[in-house]
Amino acid sequence: MEGEPRLGCPVAEVPKFIAIGLNYSDHAAEAGMPIPAEPVVFMKATSCIGGPNDRIILPPGSVKTDWEVELGIVIGSTCSYVSEDEALDHVAGYVCINDVSEREYQLERGGTWDKGKGCDSFGPIGPWLVTADEVGDPQALGLWLDVNGQRMQTGNTRTMIFDVKMMVSYLSRFMTLVPGDIITTGTPPGVGLGMKPPTYLKAGDVVTLGIDRLGSQRQVVVAYEDAFV
Amino acid sequence: MEGEPRLGCPVAEVPKFIAIGLNYSDHAAEAGMPIPAEPVVFMKATSCIGGPNDRIILPPGSVKTDWEVELGIVIGSTCSYVSEDEALDHVAGYVCINDVSEREYQLERGGTWDKGKGCDSFGPIGPWLVTADEVGDPQALGLWLDVNGQRMQTGNTRTMIFDVKMMVSYLSRFMTLVPGDIITTGTPPGVGLGMKPPTYLKAGDVVTLGIDRLGSQRQVVVAYEDAFV
Repeated sequence: MEGEPRLGCPVAEVPKFIAIGLNYSDHAAEAGMPIPAEPVVFMKATSCIGGPNDRIILPPGSVKTDWEVELGIVIGSTCSYVSEDEALDHVAGYVCINDVSEREYQLERGGTWDKGKGCDSFGPIGPWLVTADEVGDPQALGLWLDVNGQRMQTGNTRTMIFDVKMMVSYLSRFMTLVPGDIITTGTPPGVGLGMKPPTYLKAGDVVTLGIDRLGSQRQVVVAYEDAFV
Repeated sequence: MEGEPRLGCPVAEVPKFIAIGLNYSDHAAEAGMPIPAEPVVFMKATSCIGGPNDRIILPPGSVKTDWEVELGIVIGSTCSYVSEDEALDHVAGYVCINDVSEREYQLERGGTWDKGKGCDSFGPIGPWLVTADEVGDPQALGLWLDVNGQRMQTGNTRTMIFDVKMMVSYLSRFMTLVPGDIITTGTPPGVGLGMKPPTYLKAGDVVTLGIDRLGSQRQVVVAYEDAFV
């Protein structure tokens, strides 16, 4: 990628960056959590959003920074209390997202998950926003993620517990969705937290990931201390 | 207020609406939760932000919509990993906030708190942004909230578990704070959840609240079905 122009997030302004947790039953199992009866909702700080090939910066002292390839939904028009039948009318398109997560901050720091989901660089989005008509069925997309060339995650959106139309409808009951809002929809199994023993990102690692029709990403992991020199 | 011009939120663009939970020990007790060892962090959807005297709209079917008078911190300059000593340098000023909360959505719907904190109209802010120099010590401000003229909450920011400079410093370790970000800092005791039996807002109720030096708010509660006629 060196020498090439930097790609930013393909959505210029993201009012809300909303996330669904544990949306693949096999990922819930590897995370040691029950399959949710309804979507688990959290939010990622919009300040964490970056381009698809930007670096992942390990927070100072972080030892549990993890990867999560996810399908992202981009909202195209305002909706509130929308039915599942009409939900897809409000979707502009889809993006590839790495929902980077610091597991200690997320799960061991006495709070809700948001703490471990919004550090700077934890939201690579892109390369493209692909419009819904070009994507076709959002429940038939393969996802994959490699660390240093080794396949860690393989999945398909067909195994989601809650599908795209349900998630849009459901979320619209708790907050009005507006154009540019992005919903990241949960990750298939194969995250570092689920390995035996758990294995997390370290400086120098290279993360590559992609989703059918949505393109691929490549991130080099750097220590915080080396990120600004 | 009828016939007067509508006041909006005094911060025109709020990139992130961040919240601290259980930050008064006596409120933690009434909510039946342990005193947190470090701040509980969640986020309110920015789409919930309104003016100080806008109506509170009960979500359809909601039976547990509750009130929370809170001191809001408005960030004035970007900060990341800022020390407590320097944290107040990044505070533009303060606002009065009603952190309206749907307790069933927040606590009984299998997710993190965000679900019950971001419904439309759940973030009245204002009337004023008062600059830090005019406020003086942010840890010496009285807060109050009435429902239908009956005093429900009385408190003072001096009894916060985590003070303003600590919260800004702490949050800046999990997300970069940018100008316009608002941090709502937890509520003193006296919310509906803590009453015996719990008592929540119903259509027609009038909520008034205020904070020393930051002015006061007045909200009429309306049913969703009557909000748009």
